[in-house]
Amino acid sequence: MLALRNMTIRAEEVIARCRRLATFSEDRPGLRRTFLSAPMRACHAEISGWLKAAGAEVRVDAAGNLRGVYAGATSDGPRLLVGSHLDTVPNAGAYDGVLGVVLGVALVEALEGRRLPFGIEVIGFSEEEGVRFGTPFIGSRALVGRVDEELLNRRDANGISVRAAMEQFELNPGEIRRAGLRDDALGYLEFHIEQGPVLDALRKPLGVVEAIAGQTRMVFTFFGHTNHAGTTPMDLRRDALVGAAEWIVSVERIAHDVGELVATTGHIEARPGAVNVIAGLARVTLDLRHRSDGIRDEAVAAIVASAKEIAKRRDLSLEYQTTLDQKAVAMDALLAGEIEAAIRSAGCEPHRMTSGAGHDAMILAEKIPAGMVFLRTPGGISHDPAETVEVADVAKALECGMYLLEQLAGSREIQKRIRRA
Amino acid sequence: MLALRNMTIRAEEVIARCRRLATFSEDRPGLRRTFLSAPMRACHAEISGWLKAAGAEVRVDAAGNLRGVYAGATSDGPRLLVGSHLDTVPNAGAYDGVLGVVLGVALVEALEGRRLPFGIEVIGFSEEEGVRFGTPFIGSRALVGRVDEELLNRRDANGISVRAAMEQFELNPGEIRRAGLRDDALGYLEFHIEQGPVLDALRKPLGVVEAIAGQTRMVFTFFGHTNHAGTTPMDLRRDALVGAAEWIVSVERIAHDVGELVATTGHIEARPGAVNVIAGLARVTLDLRHRSDGIRDEAVAAIVASAKEIAKRRDLSLEYQTTLDQKAVAMDALLAGEIEAAIRSAGCEPHRMTSGAGHDAMILAEKIPAGMVFLRTPGGISHDPAETVEVADVAKALECGMYLLEQLAGSREIQKRIRRA
Repeated sequence: MLALRNMTIRAEEVIARCRRLATFSEDRPGLRRTFLSAPMRACHAEISGWLKAAGAEVRVDAAGNLRGVYAGATSDGPRLLVGSHLDTVPNAGAYDGVLGVVLGVALVEALEGRRLPFGIEVIGFSEEEGVRFGTPFIGSRALVGRVDEELLNRRDANGISVRAAMEQFELNPGEIRRAGLRDDALGYLEFHIEQGPVLDALRKPLGVVEAIAGQTRMVFTFFGHTNHAGTTPMDLRRDALVGAAEWIVSVERIAHDVGELVATTGHIEARPGAVNVIAGLARVTLDLRHRSDGIRDEAVAAIVASAKEIAKRRDLSLEYQTTLDQKAVAMDALLAGEIEAAIRSAGCEPHRMTSGAGHDAMILAEKIPAGMVFLRTPGGISHDPAETVEVADVAKALECGMYLLEQLAGSREIQKRIRRA
Repeated sequence: MLALRNMTIRAEEVIARCRRLATFSEDRPGLRRTFLSAPMRACHAEISGWLKAAGAEVRVDAAGNLRGVYAGATSDGPRLLVGSHLDTVPNAGAYDGVLGVVLGVALVEALEGRRLPFGIEVIGFSEEEGVRFGTPFIGSRALVGRVDEELLNRRDANGISVRAAMEQFELNPGEIRRAGLRDDALGYLEFHIEQGPVLDALRKPLGVVEAIAGQTRMVFTFFGHTNHAGTTPMDLRRDALVGAAEWIVSVERIAHDVGELVATTGHIEARPGAVNVIAGLARVTLDLRHRSDGIRDEAVAAIVASAKEIAKRRDLSLEYQTTLDQKAVAMDALLAGEIEAAIRSAGCEPHRMTSGAGHDAMILAEKIPAGMVFLRTPGGISHDPAETVEVADVAKALECGMYLLEQLAGSREIQKRIRRA
């Protein structure tokens, strides 16, 4: 049995560390720490200090990921990856991403020098949010070999390419392959705040992620006829905005009718957009997510059919395009089961759930078994300075993590995987 | 009987003149001629030439209105005002406003030197659209004594005040009172394109305006809660944009249910306005018009009630404010009757209608009897370079105008008004 004493003290330190890392920011006041920005260096230095003190060897790979390896009992044993991302959105909270890295450090510390049958590699991914280059997951993509020439040549708002940004950060983009996963990777474990209200509503500290929802993004444009608001009778109008509004309401209805589906119309634009002019164009974005790709496809079809019906009835034209069609990603079933058992061992009732947001685990799952633990997010508030976590929940997450390491160390299936490795 | 021959030739000339005046523009290509802009001088010079050739005396008053007086049979007789405005919106058509001035000139020309019991003052108002200073009707307001200090001090986008703009145009704002109506004003007659689709749909060349609709402008803001599009289940959302969309559809339904009511939601904004974020705020403008102020007030109440009901049911907050509450203005009943008879005399079936748009006649009606004739607007297309009028309709308008002058000259009621003057 691993030492579970003082988990509250460790949890308080985890939170203090997250808050300290939140001071390494491009903006003041506030937190913004994008991919390969200057404050990322200080963030790396701080975490490296903790990792080295806990007995890990630390490097920054060619993609800017911080990687600290705490060796296992044998030099040729496999390794378990534990981590999350260190970059943030603008006006960020202190826990999104960072908490998963700091919890990885705390787990290594809680081993207090004990060696497991596998090593632990704590990873702080350099980029997950997609803020700087419009492309998310650059850090984890490097581990699965998906940082290609096209991505390296992509430019930020200042015209700096990914490649140039790496060089400015004193990284060598030519060595990006060396950032890739090796055959010894046993799996990937990510702690992350839920960033949603579900666990809070259920009054449960921890959730186990079964799948990361597939996602469709579309843009719908309704074309009507711009006309004078005062001189055009209601029955002679072709008002694009009222058509779009009717469709927005229908999208909500369709999403309500399908369990677990979430559909969002977050952006709208009406042209010409004057108080006294009937809109001739209305453009609305759609974001649709579900754990089942089949159900998501059916919902997209229903939403498109609704738009077509409304446009036809109102004598509007309709255009729509799909800007993202990302399949759902299942988490490893074995890991999910072990996580569920570990949550129970920590004295909590686990909640099996789908992640509506994308995470690094989604990328790692392309190559190795991946699992995620969600921590309750009070009020579901995230991507906001008001983002918080409860000390007690972090302590439960640490307990869960320690139980999980114990279970994995003793698991026959894991032993088999270790032998295969 | 006044000469009605060659009305088609005169109509073609009216259209050619409108198109010529459209070349006096601040923009090239395109037409934009705002209040006291440089091209307005050339416009004045051109029209002055036509007026003088027809025997009128021409001046530009202190508000920049072009005023050409064609004297009546007696030097102390009253005068009938005929005109419209010479300023335009950006990207304007050639007929909105200008046509009414050029038709006034053509009516004087068609008299071919004959003198009526009343004089005719052709007026080209300097400002009706409200483009430069955000305040419409500056030209006609000068005639009814409503150009006050507050208005003179108002500034355009370049920080130039109305007063300074007048001085730059070599006008004397101190003489603004001299632009006012005199006791000899018999009435005001305005020809204007309908700027709507009603006459076109009815296949009628001309309409008589009974009233100019009252107008309410409001802004409705729905406040919900900004949240992550992927992590927030449908039943835990407070989506401001879906609430606003439901309300927009309800506004249309309310307007449809009330005869002649027009309600427009022309501008919408959702914040933060990101594809993957649930909108926490949605702001929509309302423009509502009806000839009956009572019906308009009832409709406003119904629309506010609908917004409140939707906000309450969806757990949203609601704010709304009224930015304009302009009462309906009746046209002079006697003039409307005479116009209707004149349209019939010209061989057309008149259509009595409400103007949904504001016009200079609305301002003049505060002080003197005012009447308006609408010309069919093909496709209802206005405030657009594609704005047109049919030659045959302009010819009918000229015939109508000439019949009307004849009727007014012989009308007992008008004679009484002339004797009172």
